[in-house]
Amino acid sequence: LLPIISIVGRSDSGKTTLIERLVPELARRGYRVGTVKHDVHGFDIDHPGKDSYRHFQSGSAVTVISSPTKVAMVRKVSNELRLDEIVHRYLADVDLVLTEGYKQENKLKIELVRVEAGADVFPEILSPAADLIGLAVIGKTALTPPASHPDVPVISADDVTALADRIQQDVLASRSAGPVQLLVDGIAIPLKPIMEAMVANSVTGLVSALKGCAHPGKIELRIDTRLTPKG
Amino acid sequence: LLPIISIVGRSDSGKTTLIERLVPELARRGYRVGTVKHDVHGFDIDHPGKDSYRHFQSGSAVTVISSPTKVAMVRKVSNELRLDEIVHRYLADVDLVLTEGYKQENKLKIELVRVEAGADVFPEILSPAADLIGLAVIGKTALTPPASHPDVPVISADDVTALADRIQQDVLASRSAGPVQLLVDGIAIPLKPIMEAMVANSVTGLVSALKGCAHPGKIELRIDTRLTPKG
Repeated sequence: LLPIISIVGRSDSGKTTLIERLVPELARRGYRVGTVKHDVHGFDIDHPGKDSYRHFQSGSAVTVISSPTKVAMVRKVSNELRLDEIVHRYLADVDLVLTEGYKQENKLKIELVRVEAGADVFPEILSPAADLIGLAVIGKTALTPPASHPDVPVISADDVTALADRIQQDVLASRSAGPVQLLVDGIAIPLKPIMEAMVANSVTGLVSALKGCAHPGKIELRIDTRLTPKG
Repeated sequence: LLPIISIVGRSDSGKTTLIERLVPELARRGYRVGTVKHDVHGFDIDHPGKDSYRHFQSGSAVTVISSPTKVAMVRKVSNELRLDEIVHRYLADVDLVLTEGYKQENKLKIELVRVEAGADVFPEILSPAADLIGLAVIGKTALTPPASHPDVPVISADDVTALADRIQQDVLASRSAGPVQLLVDGIAIPLKPIMEAMVANSVTGLVSALKGCAHPGKIELRIDTRLTPKG
């Protein structure tokens, strides 16, 4: 499964700035990085008057604009997408994903905390200890780790190298992506190697029997089990 | 396969305006419409200073912003995506797709032409006769159909009802979507019902053997046959 690290913290704690610094550092180390921003309030994208904006405003459910160097999409949703769905659909071809926000999802987290001058304890930590791989601290770092999270590494938010090292440890530790990526009802399903081989071989076998598909490279398949084949 | 109708024509012929009018008319008829704009020159989206813009500018390969009502994505590409890839990945859940441009792809087309006052023949038609399902004419429509495309319906570009009727004919005539959507190396592969059932049953069988997946609804699977399963 693709490594996902969430940068979480209170609003205005500096999450966007930290991501802006981590992305180029991780890219410099050879990783292709994707990012996801969780926006609980809604957002505007695209410029009024642009053609793609006009498409979307006219009532399309999804608008895509595609060029030789970039592709962009805006879609309406009736329920917020799960992080796994977003990653499977839109971030399949990156080496790791950094998210801004998503403190409710059970992904690995770096929590950004601001320590006021003169404070002698860390503020309350939002992330469950099991998810937290580091505290990125703005302000004084020389404090005792919080009792709730005694083993968490405490790193200055300015020390981008140390934070990227911490992320890289988890990326390197995670199982490298195999041939199969599977999402079932919005949840990414990890596969044991034997099952992964079985799925890869049986689907590749079926597909290569189709006209013009003798040697498939990338197979992308979507099945809605509630529909039945139609003539 | 999902019906795809391309609105083509010379630049500044009014393609965006026509799409802006067709989308609400088709939506009113109960269709969920997706749109794709082909931009050969590159485009800007997103606002400088916004968080998602900052993510992308910092060097991420893909940036997604997700809210309870909308999701947006910007990604870098090294080669322009094929229309089939775009539709499979981003427009899977719509009833029909309108594209602005994509005259080179072999999809059904409505070509927008401007007839100068006083002209007594149509200008040269860009679309192959086999793809063209209608000429949308700005200006005089009472002209003999061009010799190259003798049977093409000629409709005033202002007559959105007639154009939507023409599109609806093809949508209704196209095979309704079955349970399986398959993309192999960027090309959408149509499946005969027996093969569709075979793929649906075998993959659903494999997946429902996995822990927590006893009754899968939507299965999304991606296989890269060049990779081998890893431990």
